Amino acid sequence: MRILVANANTTEAITALCADAARAAASLGTTIIPATPRFGPAVIATRAENIIAGHALLALLAEHAGQVDGVLLAVSHDTALEAARQLLPCPVVAMTEAACLTACLAGGRFGLVTFGATETYRERIAQHGLSVRLAGLVGVDATPQEAVRDPEGVAEKLLAGIEALIADGADAVVLGGAALAGMAPTLQPRSPVPLLDGIACGVRLLEMMVALKLPKPRVGSFAAPQGRVVGGVETPLAALLRGA
Amino acid sequence: MRILVANANTTEAITALCADAARAAASLGTTIIPATPRFGPAVIATRAENIIAGHALLALLAEHAGQVDGVLLAVSHDTALEAARQLLPCPVVAMTEAACLTACLAGGRFGLVTFGATETYRERIAQHGLSVRLAGLVGVDATPQEAVRDPEGVAEKLLAGIEALIADGADAVVLGGAALAGMAPTLQPRSPVPLLDGIACGVRLLEMMVALKLPKPRVGSFAAPQGRVVGGVETPLAALLRGA
Amino acid sequence: MRILVANANTTEAITALCADAARAAASLGTTIIPATPRFGPAVIATRAENIIAGHALLALLAEHAGQVDGVLLAVSHDTALEAARQLLPCPVVAMTEAACLTACLAGGRFGLVTFGATETYRERIAQHGLSVRLAGLVGVDATPQEAVRDPEGVAEKLLAGIEALIADGADAVVLGGAALAGMAPTLQPRSPVPLLDGIACGVRLLEMMVALKLPKPRVGSFAAPQGRVVGGVETPLAALLRGA
Amino acid sequence: MRILVANANTTEAITALCADAARAAASLGTTIIPATPRFGPAVIATRAENIIAGHALLALLAEHAGQVDGVLLAVSHDTALEAARQLLPCPVVAMTEAACLTACLAGGRFGLVTFGATETYRERIAQHGLSVRLAGLVGVDATPQEAVRDPEGVAEKLLAGIEALIADGADAVVLGGAALAGMAPTLQPRSPVPLLDGIACGVRLLEMMVALKLPKPRVGSFAAPQGRVVGGVETPLAALLRGA
Amino acid sequence: MRILVANANTTEAITALCADAARAAASLGTTIIPATPRFGPAVIATRAENIIAGHALLALLAEHAGQVDGVLLAVSHDTALEAARQLLPCPVVAMTEAACLTACLAGGRFGLVTFGATETYRERIAQHGLSVRLAGLVGVDATPQEAVRDPEGVAEKLLAGIEALIADGADAVVLGGAALAGMAPTLQPRSPVPLLDGIACGVRLLEMMVALKLPKPRVGSFAAPQGRVVGGVETPLAALLRGA
Amino acid sequence: MRILVANANTTEAITALCADAARAAASLGTTIIPATPRFGPAVIATRAENIIAGHALLALLAEHAGQVDGVLLAVSHDTALEAARQLLPCPVVAMTEAACLTACLAGGRFGLVTFGATETYRERIAQHGLSVRLAGLVGVDATPQEAVRDPEGVAEKLLAGIEALIADGADAVVLGGAALAGMAPTLQPRSPVPLLDGIACGVRLLEMMVALKLPKPRVGSFAAPQGRVVGGVETPLAALLRGA
Repeated sequence: MRILVANANTTEAITALCADAARAAASLGTTIIPATPRFGPAVIATRAENIIAGHALLALLAEHAGQVDGVLLAVSHDTALEAARQLLPCPVVAMTEAACLTACLAGGRFGLVTFGATETYRERIAQHGLSVRLAGLVGVDATPQEAVRDPEGVAEKLLAGIEALIADGADAVVLGGAALAGMAPTLQPRSPVPLLDGIACGVRLLEMMVALKLPKPRVGSFAAPQGRVVGGVETPLAALLRGA
Repeated sequence: MRILVANANTTEAITALCADAARAAASLGTTIIPATPRFGPAVIATRAENIIAGHALLALLAEHAGQVDGVLLAVSHDTALEAARQLLPCPVVAMTEAACLTACLAGGRFGLVTFGATETYRERIAQHGLSVRLAGLVGVDATPQEAVRDPEGVAEKLLAGIEALIADGADAVVLGGAALAGMAPTLQPRSPVPLLDGIACGVRLLEMMVALKLPKPRVGSFAAPQGRVVGGVETPLAALLRGA
Repeated sequence: MRILVANANTTEAITALCADAARAAASLGTTIIPATPRFGPAVIATRAENIIAGHALLALLAEHAGQVDGVLLAVSHDTALEAARQLLPCPVVAMTEAACLTACLAGGRFGLVTFGATETYRERIAQHGLSVRLAGLVGVDATPQEAVRDPEGVAEKLLAGIEALIADGADAVVLGGAALAGMAPTLQPRSPVPLLDGIACGVRLLEMMVALKLPKPRVGSFAAPQGRVVGGVETPLAALLRGA
Repeated sequence: MRILVANANTTEAITALCADAARAAASLGTTIIPATPRFGPAVIATRAENIIAGHALLALLAEHAGQVDGVLLAVSHDTALEAARQLLPCPVVAMTEAACLTACLAGGRFGLVTFGATETYRERIAQHGLSVRLAGLVGVDATPQEAVRDPEGVAEKLLAGIEALIADGADAVVLGGAALAGMAPTLQPRSPVPLLDGIACGVRLLEMMVALKLPKPRVGSFAAPQGRVVGGVETPLAALLRGA
Repeated sequence: MRILVANANTTEAITALCADAARAAASLGTTIIPATPRFGPAVIATRAENIIAGHALLALLAEHAGQVDGVLLAVSHDTALEAARQLLPCPVVAMTEAACLTACLAGGRFGLVTFGATETYRERIAQHGLSVRLAGLVGVDATPQEAVRDPEGVAEKLLAGIEALIADGADAVVLGGAALAGMAPTLQPRSPVPLLDGIACGVRLLEMMVALKLPKPRVGSFAAPQGRVVGGVETPLAALLRGA
Repeated sequence: MRILVANANTTEAITALCADAARAAASLGTTIIPATPRFGPAVIATRAENIIAGHALLALLAEHAGQVDGVLLAVSHDTALEAARQLLPCPVVAMTEAACLTACLAGGRFGLVTFGATETYRERIAQHGLSVRLAGLVGVDATPQEAVRDPEGVAEKLLAGIEALIADGADAVVLGGAALAGMAPTLQPRSPVPLLDGIACGVRLLEMMVALKLPKPRVGSFAAPQGRVVGGVETPLAALLRGA
């Protein structure tokens, strides 16, 4: 099985990090193919960057359409997920979506901890229809850079955030963002609830989707595009929208 | 990997049907172990039977605790799911829960079609926190017996129900109940949207959960029971609740 | 009028406590009949115990079916409420349900205070469809035993919890659990909002239901069971499900 | 026990009808005191009339404050309910509120059938926080006058509405409006689900509230008014708001 | 364009304050006509006063019906808004409604800060259907009188409340109440998010509504009253309800 | 006041149509500046096209940033609205958002009628937090082309859709899509409820936002981007994200 792990920003190091995590999580027989967009934000930190990254990501996915069995969106904002799911002939799963759905199988309500702001995560989880399962969100005052410089200090902050979410009723905690996901092995032994890493969850959910061989909807807003005319965009993307 | 496929009613034929479906869906290397409760309803059709079946199911699961890697509740009411999840040391996934979560990965909103009444399904999906993703429920006027006698006639009714759900916005349709799940191969080619069979989805989600090696919550309402005193119940169940 | 006050755990002392509270709350002419399950948990503290207790409770209720005018479920988890409501020919009301509905008549939003964890109460109130009326839940760090040993200390903790709920917008506070209900006479004079005791509310709501002489639904998921085949369970329960 | 049955419109015949229904539903020892506002709409059919009737109703209630043990608002719009609840020293229950809460004790979801438009009922039930329990609303194309002229024809229409609500999942149906409540004895034998008459439910719920002797909230938005200065209104109302 | 700025309490000073704020916010060519009810509460602080004020306000509006192009309800409780909207031939906008809708155009979620209690604001915003956009409510422990006496001290309290709302995710904050609206010029420069003054928002939204020349609904619960018989009320109000 | 009317697809004719509608709706003194993206879909009909159009739109807006007082997104999917709102120094309003918020001022619940599919509109309205105000959506089986060829036939279909929405409780109906908005003058006289044209509503709401001179949030997820590094995109867009 060939799974594309598609970053939505242009930082190759993050793609590599996610691909490594994906390989560690994948079944035997699953090949991980990393991919980085050709343009767009170095790191997505604003709503506008997320839109641009969406286009860049779709362009990237179009290059691989038909050559992979599934696509994991390795971006914690689940950028352009619904569009990618409509566009591609294979299953598409996104990182935070995957972690949240998996959290639903591990307990009752879940929390999410991340570096920095949380409102866009709240919105994304609402779009996934999972607000009722969300116990809370905690934005830890730290950065990925700080996590590299002072891993123990940042781990303490994250564990405090996890404890706060547990106090609000979380049975599991989603680690929001690629940087945090990397810290799961350090944090998990010190956390009384399971910590969900979107890359690991996503790879396994994708393997499930591929195995189930579900047909794509032929009607409705997730049916494959046909005959769409889109100008000035990357050739493979335009072709895919045309239904060529 | 050893997966227990636990029926919640005492009809061995249904256990066998579900076990076969589970085997067909499982990965290589997964062993399916069918199990049928020792007491309780022949078929669950009322709320009271569902409670009794819950006890019977927990007693059954307790017999297998520690000897399997995961448990699939092969009962469309997701009977005693949260209790089983708390009780057992391994992951537990239920059939309708599994189909609904998988449907979330296949499109936007999903529908559910079943034989007979739908209100308890509506309640169960609300308890799963997925009401926002539910486009509708259709209860087809037919029985499993009728499906055996007149498969084509019943298939027509089900396809009409599926069309109605699509008209209400469903991108995918959950087949509610073991009897329907068996009809997926017949129905899928004639349905414009993917049909979700809870057994297949459940087996694969369980494989994912087992692979992820998430620890069980050590705090909160899903932490393993310890020191509970329960009288007059099956020995393995009492022992498990005692934490022995 | 004969009202069965059915405990769902096997601790006779709690049954006696609830029956006394019920007698104190009942109208003249109402006879309170206490009942304790023959098997199951000594005290319900886990999800699995709640399921087992549900079966034990239904078995107990079946013994009394047709001999009482109404049933009060004297268990703060409202164990097996919907099943009992479907199963029995008479009205059934549960303790926390009763307190919450009564709270709706006393103000705008209500809170709930209890000993220990609150997540399962949150879920139960959501199942009752009353989440919008819920201002908050407070789990006080104390036990029923501690309440006996140090009543004043525990009262202080409970009053602090009540104040916190008022600050969150509660106009009334439900006392979650039989142990707390017993403390209402002590707490109420020191609380600026009404405190709701599920036993008292439940007895009076039952008297209302009996007086209204509403027919039972003859269709839908609360219609009485007919012809159900359930093996290996208590004879009266099997008989009731058979519709005998 | 003295219960004021307060109409919110000025049509004495409706007051009398509601008072008769209240007497029929009341316990022995309960005295029903009918009351009709001194000004306002003959029949409430618009939002503006409902506001005016609110004032007229509060003025009426103020005349009786301290002389009755409970107040039933005999108006299907639950006019000025929250204000009356805050204003008066005794429990206040409204007709549709009472029927809806009682319906919650009779099954899962409920419907409402009425003559004419339903949107304001939808809004009122949402304000009661019970939208999740509402299966649907049906506005029958008929008038109270027509119900007098052609009772059988109107009964047929109402029964069709009840069937539609059952098909949408209702286990019980609230009869919206005094005119319909009068038809319960005719309709109930032909309905497969219980029909809820707000007057009967309200009287019994009030008896419960009076019996429970709950204190009024002393803080928050339902605490009794103190020192309010209101000019140009009826003397008893102004006095009550002043806290005199 | 003639806009009626209708206070709902009888304190002329507040009417004047609101009218000044309205004039400051209005377009060139908009004439502001202040109006104060002839009876009712000096200041609305209880639910009962709000109902009485509703009647007084409708009576006031009826005097002006047909002579103004739009009506702004200058009362933070949005008193009798829906009734006024149904009653009058011209657009009607209320103060808090206006601020909340405008806040939706300025960011994601909004907060509300006010003097004193917040529960009735929570209810009103829920009635406006905007709960999902509400990040929180803060009731500052201060009074309008204190704001006159110690403007800097009260400003500090309000800014602390605004900061708390921002921490809860608010991108904008509604100033609840006429007294606070007056403080916007002082507070805005010290607030990192926009502060919404209901009078300013309301005047501008009304100008929009007048300019759009939308017809009034001719059916449903906002269609103009016709032939309503209402006794004992102010002549213009009775006439308007009669449809004269 | 200079308002940019920005189309999100590349069809100049639609831009012109919207600009004309905007001019017709604008106040005296408002200048309408039409703008069409340089790349992207000819017409947005899929989720993927909507993402691409989002990028194209942001690039277009960046060219005009600082030169206009407000931006109207003339695209019924409200494409990239939140991103544009964060990115630009001036107010941004989108077409369907504008119509829905205006509908809230015209009655209770609103409906939406459009050509074709409705699910993405349902999602967008949910993202706007207005699901509670939504009475329903109707997708008429017709195309813009058909509307040109057979205006009367299509008008009949739309009026049937409007009637269906009124039956479901709509007091106002949003016309979804530029093509429909053009039909408002034809449809409004035959509709018993107001029809909302997003262009007209949007222009007027923008004029309000500009007049209110609200500051932009300086914190949170709508604060202006600063120092963002985005490669391979249009120069003005990259510059704006850099905060240059």
